[in-house]
Amino acid sequence: MTSLKSLAEHLGLSQATVSRALNNYSTVNAETRERVLRAAREMEYRPNASARRLATGKAGAYGMILTTEGTPMLDPQFSDFMAGLTEALAGKERDVVLGGSPNERSTATYERFIRACKVDGFVITRPLLGDSRAELLERLGVPFVLHGRTAPEPDHAYYDIDNFGAFQRATELLMQLGHRKIALLNGRVDAMFAIMRRDGFLAGVNGLARAQTPISETPMTEQEGFRCMRAALETGVTAAICSSIHLALGAERAIHDAGLALGRDMSLICHDDDLSGLSTVSFSAPLTVTRAPIRDAGRAIAGMLEQLCDGADRASQQIIAPVELILRASTRPPITP
Amino acid sequence: MTSLKSLAEHLGLSQATVSRALNNYSTVNAETRERVLRAAREMEYRPNASARRLATGKAGAYGMILTTEGTPMLDPQFSDFMAGLTEALAGKERDVVLGGSPNERSTATYERFIRACKVDGFVITRPLLGDSRAELLERLGVPFVLHGRTAPEPDHAYYDIDNFGAFQRATELLMQLGHRKIALLNGRVDAMFAIMRRDGFLAGVNGLARAQTPISETPMTEQEGFRCMRAALETGVTAAICSSIHLALGAERAIHDAGLALGRDMSLICHDDDLSGLSTVSFSAPLTVTRAPIRDAGRAIAGMLEQLCDGADRASQQIIAPVELILRASTRPPITP
Repeated sequence: MTSLKSLAEHLGLSQATVSRALNNYSTVNAETRERVLRAAREMEYRPNASARRLATGKAGAYGMILTTEGTPMLDPQFSDFMAGLTEALAGKERDVVLGGSPNERSTATYERFIRACKVDGFVITRPLLGDSRAELLERLGVPFVLHGRTAPEPDHAYYDIDNFGAFQRATELLMQLGHRKIALLNGRVDAMFAIMRRDGFLAGVNGLARAQTPISETPMTEQEGFRCMRAALETGVTAAICSSIHLALGAERAIHDAGLALGRDMSLICHDDDLSGLSTVSFSAPLTVTRAPIRDAGRAIAGMLEQLCDGADRASQQIIAPVELILRASTRPPITP
Repeated sequence: MTSLKSLAEHLGLSQATVSRALNNYSTVNAETRERVLRAAREMEYRPNASARRLATGKAGAYGMILTTEGTPMLDPQFSDFMAGLTEALAGKERDVVLGGSPNERSTATYERFIRACKVDGFVITRPLLGDSRAELLERLGVPFVLHGRTAPEPDHAYYDIDNFGAFQRATELLMQLGHRKIALLNGRVDAMFAIMRRDGFLAGVNGLARAQTPISETPMTEQEGFRCMRAALETGVTAAICSSIHLALGAERAIHDAGLALGRDMSLICHDDDLSGLSTVSFSAPLTVTRAPIRDAGRAIAGMLEQLCDGADRASQQIIAPVELILRASTRPPITP
């Protein structure tokens, strides 16, 4: 392997200059810095991360495993979450290592990352009930933060939003406006967020019969939003709450298809992650929303991972962030015939 | 540092068993494998990646830097692209290291990754004209693949789709149907894809005056789609082509707002990356599209990076993928008054 000395000799520079260039000192001009970097690569000089990792046992990175079958990680939320996470880590020169895994139940990629000491900890997004990934990391003593929860009060570090409170308040708003037939278009209840939202909804409609409160639990796509809203309209609902903006897009299409006007004939509330590309304001009536920016989750989890890996107690790293309820034109009292 | 011998003694296992467990041999049962992994972590045994990196000079990973200011990387396309990339790499035990950077012009994170030998190469998504990131990597001799192009025929490895051909054919279809006032709702022309689409559009409307072919060049959001389509309608267009599904969502809203029906009063064609969560079929009229699944791009680029890092010539790694034109109900002849 090339030594610093032979690298410096090859370049005709002092070892001090080469070292400063490799450590990104501002006293070295850009041209010299690039020349040193290029020669270091060509001569396979490996001064930094690998040696430091052997010495410190720290990878300086966190792992996140994407599922590649089906669509669970392929949400519009994903890119905003990653932007928050990488932005918060970039300032600390920490990175995210992304791996692929067929589904949420497979833990092989987690094991591979641990074997290879690729990361110091993990983010688990969209945890399932009794999540096998969390259980594995727990057994192995590897730090991790859940984005969401595996149980109402898990003994893990987690960042979640107040899904129960948000959907209870949204439902109560519709009740206060006079709605008595209200649909919930929810995600699949293999994840806590969907269970909490359903429970918040049921607390909000307390006293109404099940026939007056149809609930669908599906992948959160536009197509499912359309299908479930059309079915709900046939039962005579006058209002609906959607768990995602894609579901709401489909719901709006079903409402228009039925010849109804959003915000006049039908009230609609949507949960909004405050995404970059899709806005809940630009529906045919601006949507009343429960809002919690998902970019905040990415930023917060970056800090929590740092704390955990520095030895913080997991009980100190359990956050349930509040959710705003923002009133707009899509909610009003039902039209009485 | 802990040796394999002391780790085996601590566990009361043979060195061969410990080694097989750490190398994931199927002959070792899951319980033993986990016990070995846990002890290896606790005793800070570092057998694998770090040592292998020092020995081989390979990181076994590729870098991708997200921009965190503004929205350029925060597309709905991003998650599907990443799914394709990580899926293709996972089978080869290669990973993606994600870093953050304020914008596309900043190269500091690229330099940091190179100094620290974090990755063997990079993907540059949404390259700009005369991209400074590509220029830096070129000077340093670091392999990279562009998703898109920095020039019509760049001297780099790249994967792009036939944006010119796709938009020319889409435009010609509208011309053949009899449209003579056609709008293009395009992305910003600091990127080649938008320039190629504009040029394809202009080739397709060959002979029409500029006043009959209004072009907007904006961020590709729903809001801009609405604003630009509303402006285009005021000029009397009877058809439009949108560079993204978000632009098309906004365009559809503007069409409805004007009291017009999509696919009857107004024809619309949209470029479709075949995304997981949003479908071009579920517009008020199913959309005619130019389609190229962005997941294919992620998969292909994974293989191209492997080839490049194994010494393949860059000229052998230049792909322009074809684009399908799929006819649906959103395009028909203009209504003659």
